Amino acid sequence: MASIFSRIIAGEIPSYRVAEDEKNYAFLDINPVTKGHVLVVPKKEVDYIFDLEKDDYVSLHLFAARVAKAIKKAFPCTKVGETVMGLDVPHAHIHLMPLNKEADMNFAKPHLSLSAEEMQSIADKIAKEFE
Amino acid sequence: MASIFSRIIAGEIPSYRVAEDEKNYAFLDINPVTKGHVLVVPKKEVDYIFDLEKDDYVSLHLFAARVAKAIKKAFPCTKVGETVMGLDVPHAHIHLMPLNKEADMNFAKPHLSLSAEEMQSIADKIAKEFE
Repeated sequence: MASIFSRIIAGEIPSYRVAEDEKNYAFLDINPVTKGHVLVVPKKEVDYIFDLEKDDYVSLHLFAARVAKAIKKAFPCTKVGETVMGLDVPHAHIHLMPLNKEADMNFAKPHLSLSAEEMQSIADKIAKEFE
Repeated sequence: MASIFSRIIAGEIPSYRVAEDEKNYAFLDINPVTKGHVLVVPKKEVDYIFDLEKDDYVSLHLFAARVAKAIKKAFPCTKVGETVMGLDVPHAHIHLMPLNKEADMNFAKPHLSLSAEEMQSIADKIAKEFE
């Protein structure tokens, strides 16, 4: 069965889309740890990031760097941080989020619950900065 | 002034070395979140990972994938997780560590304090699996 991310990429499940290229897709995490929390996923459904073929792995990381630059412009911060765990959805994904202090990327703290309107506005803001 | 990581790479400060190639260096985090917690750094001292030149950025991630494979062989786990924050040392670095549950990569929890002997044995175990 297709992963929830494959269904999002296919447009079967809605998402707050941030950016896309031939091989990769970026959208807002639906339970954000912080405002500007984005997931970057390869369109090819592979569970473990380190099992990606070399070209796809490199493409994913180069795409993530472009998304990170857009996040930093949209949400000024010290740095954009990156986390890969992959214990929930069996489809490789990179979490990117604006960081000003270490605790900003603590997944154990309560996640945000934002209105659809606010989520759309965050996605638009980052999408506008994507190059 | 050279970052602490540049001084480690130059051998001026000791480290529990795990792997190395022309452009990158991997060694144990001295305050590990979990056993098998490794830092992967580019030899070129650049503060923010997304400021690395394309070749160096790609090289760092391909090297990290090789280190992750070695960690997983040395410390069997569900996946090897990855975190990049970079708010402490101004020299880009990727944290890699064995994950069985999300809480394994929680930087907010108390870090481990291992003996020099145990640290060396962990580094040797991972180094042996590095290809």
